Amino acid sequence: MARPPTLEFWFEFASTYSYLSAARIEALAGEAGVSLRWRPFLLGPIFAAHGWTSSPFNLFPAKGRNMWRDLAREAARLGLPPVRQPPSFPQNSLTATRVAAYGAEQPWIGHFVRAVYEAEFARGQSIAEPASVAALLDGLDLDGHALVKLAASEPHKSRLRVVGEEAKSRGIFGAPTFLTEDGELFWGNDRLEQALAWALGERPAGVR
Amino acid sequence: MARPPTLEFWFEFASTYSYLSAARIEALAGEAGVSLRWRPFLLGPIFAAHGWTSSPFNLFPAKGRNMWRDLAREAARLGLPPVRQPPSFPQNSLTATRVAAYGAEQPWIGHFVRAVYEAEFARGQSIAEPASVAALLDGLDLDGHALVKLAASEPHKSRLRVVGEEAKSRGIFGAPTFLTEDGELFWGNDRLEQALAWALGERPAGVR
Repeated sequence: MARPPTLEFWFEFASTYSYLSAARIEALAGEAGVSLRWRPFLLGPIFAAHGWTSSPFNLFPAKGRNMWRDLAREAARLGLPPVRQPPSFPQNSLTATRVAAYGAEQPWIGHFVRAVYEAEFARGQSIAEPASVAALLDGLDLDGHALVKLAASEPHKSRLRVVGEEAKSRGIFGAPTFLTEDGELFWGNDRLEQALAWALGERPAGVR
Repeated sequence: MARPPTLEFWFEFASTYSYLSAARIEALAGEAGVSLRWRPFLLGPIFAAHGWTSSPFNLFPAKGRNMWRDLAREAARLGLPPVRQPPSFPQNSLTATRVAAYGAEQPWIGHFVRAVYEAEFARGQSIAEPASVAALLDGLDLDGHALVKLAASEPHKSRLRVVGEEAKSRGIFGAPTFLTEDGELFWGNDRLEQALAWALGERPAGVR
């Protein structure tokens, strides 16, 4: 049997539209026969290179107002619970991202990623504190305290800087981003279905 | 018979994703039984308020590279001709926008809007010069020279400033934007179908 095609899912835990993709990508990839590679990363350094000190949704208020409204509509359309905003936005995602980077190949990764996003955007809780992330891991019958500690130790801790450099070098400027094995980049939850189709070899007429 | 619902289509002639909407909105609205209101406007003053001196697609090169690639894929998916970039981007859209504002209620408005976008993004021509816009009008059996001159005269000329203030006050931050009669805002070509559905009274479950 041929090896299934792989799709990389680059996501940032603070990102609202990454949530919409994280909620459904494992199921959609499974149905499509596409192998999923979870690529947690931090958007902060990429935004900082634009001179942005916060999320563009905070820096440009009209854009931010639309984002929250659009997120509510899209969550409803996708059958997700009503959106609740976390106590501050964007959330500091460092601990959650370290754990996800550490566990990216583990069988619990999908459950963990969804647990973080649901806490943040469906229950409106903070995910910023190591204790919050540990509690979510505990809820998955994992040892939260130990995993958070391990993910924050060397050499795992430094991995995120390397991942950030890889993101920049591969043209990533936002999240979610989907990258196919032949380097095709799709940005935004609205492109998830097209990214999966591309990974399967489908092309719009005339596009190579 | 009840009056059909109206959808406002706010577009900027320099905007690539506005092109994708302009190419199909009249047909889609007609099929849906939604009355269309063409709202040409200039994004420049709104971007300038963000401190941007050019298109964000130029200011943030990775975002720009993705936009052109995504535009090519989306144009193919929507059955439009291969995209050709105009000689400079973004194009100065002042003359075309003045003519569209002048003719927004005229029977030729849809034909004119599509003719401008096709010249710009399907044939890769400049639309910046008054003579280019006049030639496109001539191609529609209109008096291009006279219309360009009229649209640039008072009181029509000043109208765009008022329209720009209206755009800001209604929360518009980009193009294309779709606004329903109850003030629901949808941003981006990806939301055209949802904006039409909203105009017809359809709501995702749980959203008001």
